[in-house]
Amino acid sequence: MQTLTVALDDRSYPIHVGPGVLRQQALVQAAIPAQSVLLVSNATVAPLHAAPLKAALADRNVVEVIIPDGEQHKSLATAGRMFDVLVANRIGRDAVVVALGGGVVGDLAGFVAACYQRGIDYVQVPTTLLAQVDSSVGGKTAVNHPGGKNLIGAFHQPIAVLADTDVLATLPDRELRAGLAEVIKYGLICDSGFFAWIEANIGALLARDPAALTHAIHRSCEVKAGIVARDEREQGERALLNLGHTFGHAIEAATGYVEWLHGEAIAAGMLIAADLSHRMGALTRADVERIEALLARAGLRTQAPRMGAEKAAGYMSIDKKVQAGRVRLVLMQGFGRARFTADYDDAALRDTLRAHFGP
Amino acid sequence: MQTLTVALDDRSYPIHVGPGVLRQQALVQAAIPAQSVLLVSNATVAPLHAAPLKAALADRNVVEVIIPDGEQHKSLATAGRMFDVLVANRIGRDAVVVALGGGVVGDLAGFVAACYQRGIDYVQVPTTLLAQVDSSVGGKTAVNHPGGKNLIGAFHQPIAVLADTDVLATLPDRELRAGLAEVIKYGLICDSGFFAWIEANIGALLARDPAALTHAIHRSCEVKAGIVARDEREQGERALLNLGHTFGHAIEAATGYVEWLHGEAIAAGMLIAADLSHRMGALTRADVERIEALLARAGLRTQAPRMGAEKAAGYMSIDKKVQAGRVRLVLMQGFGRARFTADYDDAALRDTLRAHFGP
Repeated sequence: MQTLTVALDDRSYPIHVGPGVLRQQALVQAAIPAQSVLLVSNATVAPLHAAPLKAALADRNVVEVIIPDGEQHKSLATAGRMFDVLVANRIGRDAVVVALGGGVVGDLAGFVAACYQRGIDYVQVPTTLLAQVDSSVGGKTAVNHPGGKNLIGAFHQPIAVLADTDVLATLPDRELRAGLAEVIKYGLICDSGFFAWIEANIGALLARDPAALTHAIHRSCEVKAGIVARDEREQGERALLNLGHTFGHAIEAATGYVEWLHGEAIAAGMLIAADLSHRMGALTRADVERIEALLARAGLRTQAPRMGAEKAAGYMSIDKKVQAGRVRLVLMQGFGRARFTADYDDAALRDTLRAHFGP
Repeated sequence: MQTLTVALDDRSYPIHVGPGVLRQQALVQAAIPAQSVLLVSNATVAPLHAAPLKAALADRNVVEVIIPDGEQHKSLATAGRMFDVLVANRIGRDAVVVALGGGVVGDLAGFVAACYQRGIDYVQVPTTLLAQVDSSVGGKTAVNHPGGKNLIGAFHQPIAVLADTDVLATLPDRELRAGLAEVIKYGLICDSGFFAWIEANIGALLARDPAALTHAIHRSCEVKAGIVARDEREQGERALLNLGHTFGHAIEAATGYVEWLHGEAIAAGMLIAADLSHRMGALTRADVERIEALLARAGLRTQAPRMGAEKAAGYMSIDKKVQAGRVRLVLMQGFGRARFTADYDDAALRDTLRAHFGP
C-alpha cells in the first residue's frame, strides 16, 4: 500500500492506494474517526464491497443509505432525501459521511457532507478507476442540474481517501476504459513521460494487472494532488484538470447524462481540444493522431454525437468556465503541456465544432 | 456613513452602515462589480426598497427573483427554484447575487450563491435590524429543514454589506424589537458597557432615533466582525454568538417557525440561558432580573411556550452544537461575559427547562 498526502494546511488528508486497503481494519477505523457514520453507497456497489467496511465499523453507529445506480440520481432531490435521513437519525456535526462508490456517490455524498450543518467530515472510498484517479481527490462535490452537470456544489475536502485496487476486479470493462481516459489526461496536461508509460502498458492496464493499475492510480493521484495543493479553489492551474471537459460536458448534457459515461465523454472531448490546439498550431497532426490512437487502444470511442456545432456551442455556454460571456478552454500548448485560456481563435473553434459535432 | 472591515484575508469585505447608503450610486456600483446580477428579494421588501438599487444597476443585466415573504420559504425547495432561474438565464460564475431583504432572503440567497457553480459572489443588502446586526455579517448561509433550523447550509462570505439605516423606517415595530434582542445579545456576551448604553437609550432606539440606531448597528457589527475574524468557521469563540439560540431554536422549531420571530425566540432563549447560569452560580438573581427588565422594556416577550421540558430537550438534541451526544450551550460566566461549554449541571438544566417550558 502507498500513501500520498494532499497538502492543504489544516485540510490536508491522506490517500491510501493499493490492494487490500479495505481489509486493513485498523487503517479503516483510524480513517473514520467518529461514532456516528452515514454510509452512502448504491445498489450495485453495496452488495459487492460494503462488507469489509461494515466489519471494520462494527462498533460504530452506522446508518446506511443506498441510492439507485446512475448519474440521474446525482440530483438536488436525492441530496434532499439524504438530509432527511441525517435529520431523522439525529446525526450530529461530529459524524462522518462515508462515500462507497463511484463519482456519483462520491460527489453526492460529499455535497451532502458539505452542506449538512454547514459541513461535516467525509471519507471517500472510490470503487471505480475514474473515482480513484479523479473525483475522489480534490474536494469538488456537486449534484447535476437538468441544465448542466455539476452546476450545484461546494468545495469540501474529504478527511481521507481509501482507494483499494482490489475493488476494481468487479468493475465492468466499459467503466475501466472510461477511467483510463482520465489517466491519459494526466499524461497530456503535464507529463508526457507518463503518457508514454501508458502507451507501453495499455495492454497490462486493460488486463487489470495489479502492478500496472497501482502505478497508474498512484501517479494520477500524485499529479492531481500536486495541482490541487497549489490551487485548491481553481483560480488558475487547477482548471487544467478540465482538459476535454467543456466539450465533454456538452456531450453528456446533450445525451441526458445516461448514454455516455463521464470518462468516455472526456475522451472524445480531449480529442476535440487536441484538434483545436492543432488548428491553432500548438500540436502537430502526428500529435493528434498519437492521442487518438491511444484512446482507441484503450477502447474509447472518439467520435462525438452529431448534434450540430450550434447546439454544442449552446451547451458549452452554460459551462462554469464562462467569464464575461466567453467560454474559457483548456487547450494543449505542446505535447504533455496544457493551458487555460480565453485567447483562442473563434473561427478555429467553429471549424472544430463542425468537424466533430457536424454542421 | 461608517465603514467597517471584516478581516478574513482574501475574503475580507466592507460593511457600509448609515443613512442613505443605497442612494449613493457610485458606492452601490462599486460594491456590485459584475455585469450579471441576480437580485433576490421578497414580495414585501422589493416594492419598498428595490428602486434605488435598480437605478444604480441600470446598465447591468439584472435578473430579479421575488420570493414570498416568510421563514417557511427558506427551504431547499426555494433554493432549487433559484438554481433553475440561474441556469435558465445562463448566469455565469462571474455574476453577483444581491440579497435585498431580511435574514430569510440573505440566508437563502447566500446559500444559493455558495452552491451555484460551487460558489459565486454575493452582496448583502439587509433591510431589517436583525439582518443588519446579525445575519448579514459573517458568511453563515443556510436553509431550514422541517426537522430543524439552518440544518442545510454553507460558510460563504459576502463581498460587501450595504446596511442603510433609512430602510428601517418601514420596518414593523415587532421586527424592530426582535432586532433589538440581538443588539442586547452583543452586550451580554462581551460588552457590559454596551449593555448599559442600550439600557440608557432603549427609548431612543424604539423611537428609531437615527443616531441611536446607527451607533447600535455599528457597535453590533463591530463586535460580530471581530469575533468572526478570529474564528470564521466556529471552532470556538464564534459559538458565543449563539447565546440563547439553542433554547430559541427549540421554540422556533416547536412552533413551526411562524409564530415567533427569530429575535423574539432568541430573547426568550437568552433569559433561559441567564437563568441556568444563575442556577449554576455565574449570575446573581439581580443580574437575571436586569436582563429580563431590558428585554421587557424592548417589548420582547420572555415567556417560552409551555411545550414541556422533555419536548424542548428533544428539539435541543438536533442542534448543530451537539457533540458526542451532548448539547453544548452558551452560558454566562458573569455579566457581559459568555462561554461555550458542555460542562453544565444536568439537574440545573432540567430544572431550568421545567421552569420555562413547563413540566
